[in-house]
Amino acid sequence: MKKTYLLPLAGLAAMMPSLALAQDATPGFDEIGPYIMTTLLFLVGGFLVFWMAAGFAMLEAGLVRSKNVTMQLTKNIALFSIAAIMYWLCGYGIMYPGDFNGYLSIGGFFTSLEPVGLGAADADLGYASVASDFFFQLMFVAATASIVSGALAERIKLWPFLIFVVVLTGIMYPISGSWQWGGGWLSEAGFSDFAGSTIVHSVGGWAALAGAIVLGPRLGKYKDGRVNPFPGSNLALATLGTFILWLGWFGFNGGSQLAAGTVGDITDVGRIFANTNMAAASGAVTALILTQLVYSKVDLTMVLNGCLAGLVSITAEPLAPSLFGALWIGAIGGVIVVFTVPMLDKFKIDDVVGAIPVHLIAGIWGTIAVVFYNSDASLGTQITGIIAYGVFTFVVSLVLWFILKAVIGIRVSEEAEINGLDTSELGMEAYPDFSKG
Amino acid sequence: MKKTYLLPLAGLAAMMPSLALAQDATPGFDEIGPYIMTTLLFLVGGFLVFWMAAGFAMLEAGLVRSKNVTMQLTKNIALFSIAAIMYWLCGYGIMYPGDFNGYLSIGGFFTSLEPVGLGAADADLGYASVASDFFFQLMFVAATASIVSGALAERIKLWPFLIFVVVLTGIMYPISGSWQWGGGWLSEAGFSDFAGSTIVHSVGGWAALAGAIVLGPRLGKYKDGRVNPFPGSNLALATLGTFILWLGWFGFNGGSQLAAGTVGDITDVGRIFANTNMAAASGAVTALILTQLVYSKVDLTMVLNGCLAGLVSITAEPLAPSLFGALWIGAIGGVIVVFTVPMLDKFKIDDVVGAIPVHLIAGIWGTIAVVFYNSDASLGTQITGIIAYGVFTFVVSLVLWFILKAVIGIRVSEEAEINGLDTSELGMEAYPDFSKG
Amino acid sequence: MKKTYLLPLAGLAAMMPSLALAQDATPGFDEIGPYIMTTLLFLVGGFLVFWMAAGFAMLEAGLVRSKNVTMQLTKNIALFSIAAIMYWLCGYGIMYPGDFNGYLSIGGFFTSLEPVGLGAADADLGYASVASDFFFQLMFVAATASIVSGALAERIKLWPFLIFVVVLTGIMYPISGSWQWGGGWLSEAGFSDFAGSTIVHSVGGWAALAGAIVLGPRLGKYKDGRVNPFPGSNLALATLGTFILWLGWFGFNGGSQLAAGTVGDITDVGRIFANTNMAAASGAVTALILTQLVYSKVDLTMVLNGCLAGLVSITAEPLAPSLFGALWIGAIGGVIVVFTVPMLDKFKIDDVVGAIPVHLIAGIWGTIAVVFYNSDASLGTQITGIIAYGVFTFVVSLVLWFILKAVIGIRVSEEAEINGLDTSELGMEAYPDFSKG
Repeated sequence: MKKTYLLPLAGLAAMMPSLALAQDATPGFDEIGPYIMTTLLFLVGGFLVFWMAAGFAMLEAGLVRSKNVTMQLTKNIALFSIAAIMYWLCGYGIMYPGDFNGYLSIGGFFTSLEPVGLGAADADLGYASVASDFFFQLMFVAATASIVSGALAERIKLWPFLIFVVVLTGIMYPISGSWQWGGGWLSEAGFSDFAGSTIVHSVGGWAALAGAIVLGPRLGKYKDGRVNPFPGSNLALATLGTFILWLGWFGFNGGSQLAAGTVGDITDVGRIFANTNMAAASGAVTALILTQLVYSKVDLTMVLNGCLAGLVSITAEPLAPSLFGALWIGAIGGVIVVFTVPMLDKFKIDDVVGAIPVHLIAGIWGTIAVVFYNSDASLGTQITGIIAYGVFTFVVSLVLWFILKAVIGIRVSEEAEINGLDTSELGMEAYPDFSKG
Repeated sequence: MKKTYLLPLAGLAAMMPSLALAQDATPGFDEIGPYIMTTLLFLVGGFLVFWMAAGFAMLEAGLVRSKNVTMQLTKNIALFSIAAIMYWLCGYGIMYPGDFNGYLSIGGFFTSLEPVGLGAADADLGYASVASDFFFQLMFVAATASIVSGALAERIKLWPFLIFVVVLTGIMYPISGSWQWGGGWLSEAGFSDFAGSTIVHSVGGWAALAGAIVLGPRLGKYKDGRVNPFPGSNLALATLGTFILWLGWFGFNGGSQLAAGTVGDITDVGRIFANTNMAAASGAVTALILTQLVYSKVDLTMVLNGCLAGLVSITAEPLAPSLFGALWIGAIGGVIVVFTVPMLDKFKIDDVVGAIPVHLIAGIWGTIAVVFYNSDASLGTQITGIIAYGVFTFVVSLVLWFILKAVIGIRVSEEAEINGLDTSELGMEAYPDFSKG
Repeated sequence: MKKTYLLPLAGLAAMMPSLALAQDATPGFDEIGPYIMTTLLFLVGGFLVFWMAAGFAMLEAGLVRSKNVTMQLTKNIALFSIAAIMYWLCGYGIMYPGDFNGYLSIGGFFTSLEPVGLGAADADLGYASVASDFFFQLMFVAATASIVSGALAERIKLWPFLIFVVVLTGIMYPISGSWQWGGGWLSEAGFSDFAGSTIVHSVGGWAALAGAIVLGPRLGKYKDGRVNPFPGSNLALATLGTFILWLGWFGFNGGSQLAAGTVGDITDVGRIFANTNMAAASGAVTALILTQLVYSKVDLTMVLNGCLAGLVSITAEPLAPSLFGALWIGAIGGVIVVFTVPMLDKFKIDDVVGAIPVHLIAGIWGTIAVVFYNSDASLGTQITGIIAYGVFTFVVSLVLWFILKAVIGIRVSEEAEINGLDTSELGMEAYPDFSKG
């Protein structure tokens, strides 16, 4: 952080000609401006999506019981870190292979960045820096893994979960991601998923669903035909997590414009920000009103999930809709949450934080909703994409969970589950100073 | 998030001419650069101010008793969501009506954004994208509503509060906002309030004051001539909330420069950041020292509020003062908090989080302080503005609170208040696993 | 936040010529673009590093026992505020004195910023606005002070600690900082520390180490030859703090590129972001695996500190390494934490949050690691720098702590320590509603 000594302002005039000279030799802002702005978009968008990792961690830590909080925190920081390494090791190369068969391209291991001090002549001036693109893209894969961790909380062992994360982030997500964002067969077919309602969110949801089925519900969750609520231990954290995710989503959707250096592009990014915010607000308000009407009491966890479902719903097409479009698309996300959370319980699928309704079902909805505002999208192709991602992710996840179950076991012992994973698995409580009620 | 396949760098040279050609047809960066930078300022500033919603939520959740935390969180996420919808529905149109009578312009319902992929020829190149402006402005109205929620915590019913928020964010704030920022009569008169010490903060404070009077103090707060302290349940959250607000304030004040694409503008934004930070620091240090001197013990909640009062104080003029100016303006904010918090208690006005001293009284101070550094501002006009906003907001709020009280009631039952709003009104505790002391 | 009335789009064509005219009179984007982008880099980087103050506050509040949380929060917000004032008062002037003897230059009191509405002709177009630079730099000194507060938690008195902060942030850090970043003797000698592994982190660590030695360990920490663990009271907060620090570090390292307005510079910033993220991830994964292997149980607090140690390790050279370089450099940071945390306990140096391993020892490692990827750095000079900062900071700190101890005392009474600093020193509990276990 050494800086050049600030010349007295009087000295500047003398300095200007040489500056101007230096600039003559390099391309001017008309040529490099878009590259700089798009790279900046990826860096800002990327750190916002990074921040979503903290959002998932807080949301999940707030929605589990206090005896499992340390475990949930550990999983969240570990899964992000593993995703970052796996995406470098092979994920990025698999997902963006360049010219390929459209289905699968293994290779491109060990992502490498541009050399230091890249010259303008060597840069892809029509896009952005590779490093910024890599940084931005890797944040998305981490989000996928976070979705899984919430659904399977409070009974899954740490290491089998992390092994699943290794495969999900290094192989599964990159393969299916390449079909669309890598320019593969679904992209060729005209599938449309702007920022990943399907590619990121429903993929996380399918992997979570497979895991929840193989793992089974928590002890005592479904007993004598009744559904026992296990209230989250810290709703302040859960709310904080939701706000963090909402904030991060501006980067998630806005950065997915993939360009910010023209009037049209930066204006579109603004449009995406406004629509994203509207869908979140409308999902939250819908859940607020609906829970009042249906249960006669507002349910904060439903409001939080309604907000997130609104966000997931707008993610497949945050650009084309009007603000009113974002409002009703997000509202349906809110409706989905209120009605599918209890539905999952009917099937005795125990999703601790509501990740499957929020990310999978609202993700499907958002992908379908594209057809209302984006005339390039057809319902048939959207459904093809939804099914392709669903079948691939669900089946591969199911197989992987079964293998993990058979080989090393994925569930903690009954005793450990009752005592809580924090003391039994980690020997460390999250709130040791407070007696339990 | 599909991206063009990265061409081998060798291929770039061949690509450059066509790129350059494409750019010849569109205006260059000298023309579009300021628009892009200002739009970016609104997007970054806007997400920072959005983040303040989380700050208010954490601050208030930390300062209420644990039995009312779920309710406070619910109010905060609901009020933000409602504000976002109301500002789209009519607020933005009322506040920025264009040419109008200077007092009130109803119309401009259903804010609409620019078309997707706006061409440079159709853009307001002297300003920024409408979407980014809308996004930025709506965050301010949400802040106003957050201020009210803190003051009235722990005894107000959810729905009457939310109805008030509907009117405040959709009608009241936009009307009075139009007087100044919409180019209305106060703007014509020369009133000066850069980022809203009066327009945002004191408006929130006046609405809160009216509510606190109509609602009355919490049970047991003023008993047998004594003021009973009801300590906040989670000072870590309250501190987190303060840091979040501090961070968001860089966007609040910095974005209010409304331009970032010239040397003068971006330099001014930097100046605003530095001054904003200084005022916050100095408000905090002042409260730190004063509480030590006055009470012989440092009071963390006063330090937090001192910091916030410093921020509110500099908000009316964060640009013109020197760093030393920001220091002493912020310091007086800190003094205000330490001495007016107990004063309110003398009047038995029960402001749970100290919102009235911080936002109303420091807001008035900040609006007056403009005259010391901005030679365009006159004390008379500043006071005119302060009174105009005060009378309008306080009277309309008072009427509205009385109507709500008469028609549906605004206060929970005594039993509900004693048991806590979380169990009685929402059936959901924020920290169910922890026994209460 | 008044804005010009949006002209109907049709009117824009007429407006354009005058705009273009106005721009002819001022330098174009080829000349001002780099200044604008670098200023923006400092503002965004600066608010990210500001955010680290909240990260330290949450990390430390989470790692102390609940009876000392209010005190820890108070220290953190106070130290940041004091740092902001001291750096303005004299720190910035001492650290960036311009032409000086290379060792010490007292003067440059009361930092002043550029005038409002700076013209391009008066700006340092080869760098950035003074205000943005000041804003960015002051965030670094605050980080140094935060490191000290964590190590000395749970037994140090408030005011002596704050007096130390006054000297550290106003005098000590700026003097030693000037040696390198102010263009002093170490810079002349070829020392290399990109964003401050030594200059910021190890300096904080040395000051903390001196304090920990003078202060002595907490009561009961080392008893009958055993090390008693005092578990942190809120691991959710500690994890949140770590995520905040991780996020802020993108600004810390990325902003230290000190330029963003050319293809090479913005690409380098992207490279720094990617490397910083990788080192954090790899530090965390390393600690995850190592604690499993060494203790047979994953230790979340070690994972958090491993992540932070990875970040500190890459801070001296976040640009030159490849992603693989960042991976192994960060991994060694993780190893350092796992093995030096218990080592400190052997010497009965009681570092409450692990600040010394993370910031001092990983900081030294990071400074040495520069030689592997930056051919301009020599091991001898790196070690010279490490020793110079170490000797100066440790000795001056030691003297200062001894003086404070002799004159006013630095440690609370035994009774106060047992009861907790919150009730005994501040009369305010952080979590008053919850009974202690």
